[in-house]
Amino acid sequence: MVERAYLDHNASSPLRPEVMDAMIAALAGAGNASSVHHEGRRARALIETARQDVAALVGVAPAQIVFTSGGTEANNMALSPGWLGAAGCGRLFVSAVEHPSVLKGGQFAAEAIEVLPVHAEGVLNVEAATERLRLWREAWAGAPFMASLMLANNETGAVQPVIPFAKAVHALGGILHCDAVQAAGKLPLEEVARSADLISISAHKFGGPKGAGALVLANGKLGFLRPLISGGGQERGYRAGTENNAAIAGFGVAAAIAKRELAEVSRLAALRDRIEADVLRIAADATIFSSGSERLPNTICFAVADMSAETLLMAFDLDGVSLSAGSACSSGKIERSHVLTAMGIAPERAGAAIRVSLGWNSTEGDADRFSAAWQRIYSKFQERRRAA
Amino acid sequence: MVERAYLDHNASSPLRPEVMDAMIAALAGAGNASSVHHEGRRARALIETARQDVAALVGVAPAQIVFTSGGTEANNMALSPGWLGAAGCGRLFVSAVEHPSVLKGGQFAAEAIEVLPVHAEGVLNVEAATERLRLWREAWAGAPFMASLMLANNETGAVQPVIPFAKAVHALGGILHCDAVQAAGKLPLEEVARSADLISISAHKFGGPKGAGALVLANGKLGFLRPLISGGGQERGYRAGTENNAAIAGFGVAAAIAKRELAEVSRLAALRDRIEADVLRIAADATIFSSGSERLPNTICFAVADMSAETLLMAFDLDGVSLSAGSACSSGKIERSHVLTAMGIAPERAGAAIRVSLGWNSTEGDADRFSAAWQRIYSKFQERRRAA
Repeated sequence: MVERAYLDHNASSPLRPEVMDAMIAALAGAGNASSVHHEGRRARALIETARQDVAALVGVAPAQIVFTSGGTEANNMALSPGWLGAAGCGRLFVSAVEHPSVLKGGQFAAEAIEVLPVHAEGVLNVEAATERLRLWREAWAGAPFMASLMLANNETGAVQPVIPFAKAVHALGGILHCDAVQAAGKLPLEEVARSADLISISAHKFGGPKGAGALVLANGKLGFLRPLISGGGQERGYRAGTENNAAIAGFGVAAAIAKRELAEVSRLAALRDRIEADVLRIAADATIFSSGSERLPNTICFAVADMSAETLLMAFDLDGVSLSAGSACSSGKIERSHVLTAMGIAPERAGAAIRVSLGWNSTEGDADRFSAAWQRIYSKFQERRRAA
Repeated sequence: MVERAYLDHNASSPLRPEVMDAMIAALAGAGNASSVHHEGRRARALIETARQDVAALVGVAPAQIVFTSGGTEANNMALSPGWLGAAGCGRLFVSAVEHPSVLKGGQFAAEAIEVLPVHAEGVLNVEAATERLRLWREAWAGAPFMASLMLANNETGAVQPVIPFAKAVHALGGILHCDAVQAAGKLPLEEVARSADLISISAHKFGGPKGAGALVLANGKLGFLRPLISGGGQERGYRAGTENNAAIAGFGVAAAIAKRELAEVSRLAALRDRIEADVLRIAADATIFSSGSERLPNTICFAVADMSAETLLMAFDLDGVSLSAGSACSSGKIERSHVLTAMGIAPERAGAAIRVSLGWNSTEGDADRFSAAWQRIYSKFQERRRAA
């Protein structure tokens, strides 16, 4: 059987072999990391080593890492009126292109959530957003607020102006959360960690396992009201529940490798550029979304008018190439992308968008396979278009 | 090196080899279970197979299983005023011997939580509890309430009267949650699933992995207000976040084996009886807690006056036997057991309690090892006692 080309790393990146080895070793050991006996201490040691590696990837101290079951949980933990020192009040501002786990506002009441628009390239307009925050602060003198801006968009790869926006939010007395789930392992995080107050990351987007994420307490002075998941005193009281030490160990190994290989993301960018050139060479009428803004080195979101994403994905899948719709989906059903809609893309074009996302194991061979499949699919489409 | 005797299954049970195999196979596959391509569909299939096996263990339909990251998350999800049709109001009654993740009341406000006492054997007094619920209902005519009672206690193994209490709660218009984390795989759950409205279970207590649990929607008609973790539409909207398909696959395999082996728990009970007899033969002054009530077939909690749990655990650990304090701990620090305290056990005796908990891989050899160690430790203690 010919190998498939898996080009859907933004949905989930395959496990790195070193991560698999670390997880198998961890799974083979019994013990709850809270137990004081031999097996418990061994489980604990795995977690604390991983904490150091994850902290190093972000550029913070190990004590600033709170392990969670993933990025969505980290986002739900972060988005809480509890950080504002007053549960149930305050406001949450989110960009229109955030992940659903941010858009839904976590523990904020629905009526407390306000969406900030993006411009046509899918990037937050910092000036307009700041003006909106300023007006809100004026209207509600002294009221606490939180804002959330992702570091890079999962669908288009567009990088957001987190650092200038953090400055603006702080100048107005707010707290900034940054969903860096899609950026971790692809962009350096140190400067963001010095700017944002809370950062979410997830292991399975860069070669670690599903089931492990972290909320980074980037601003160590932030007060903490009540955990999202309470019970035992794990994670210094921030997150109860027996730690998934195997997944956390894998997270640590993936973080250590990602940190080493950050310097080599230019390899991914070159592969991305090659695929992008092939997309346009084969289909001159294709649109690459957010191509006018800074993007992740691994992501291409494109569409051709009248080619539905659903049909395209199936055709690629049958041809051995795994891609995603530009839109997130969680039930097998493809919905129109809220990201492209927020960018002002017309419904028929947004409904045609598909995403190629590369990762640690992507090769020239994958690019060849993609381009050959795209050539076949687009040619057939053109034949049908001519016949119609 | 001589093998150790790991007798701390109630803290975490080692992975069954079949679970390890299933997890390695799942970890080797790329793909997000929400993706429509080949890899995504394979990840999805693992989850749906596991859902059937977990549902079969509990005796419900697969659609009644909501996968979570573990038992603590399931408890936090279950304990929500949202089920009462009115967030932020209502009352939560919990037994005094519940796990900390239930005692803290999940999403209920601290002032809405009321603790129901247990008798000296650590078992809820259904009559007294029902009378308290009735009085509360009378005082707050028609107000909605929820109660939570575990199926078996993690420290003493005492089995709680969930079925009669469920009847009483329902007769008063309330909702009953049952934390069956420690009972699953050791006791049949079918009758509980016909009585309670919500049930929590966790994989790693019976040979599955850490990082997988389930909230069982035993009462399918219960309304649902808002997920604890929101975002994508995973788990039919009950729990957002990319599914940890490897852990879920392992959960399924562990559940299928546990169901097959439920008939053989008498083997564990016999081993438990032998160890318990040895505890008392060696130390005639030992107390076995909850020995007058129905208990899990795998759990012994005992104490000898003046022998501190901390010292005992260290001595056993050095002798190659892994046990726990009667109390849960999550920071390496041993706290006095709230369970034994609720049973009216004096502080010095509660502080001496340690727990032996058996599981799927426990053998006569483990019992030999335990008894030999106990003989050595107790003899030394007696020498010191005589010298003092």
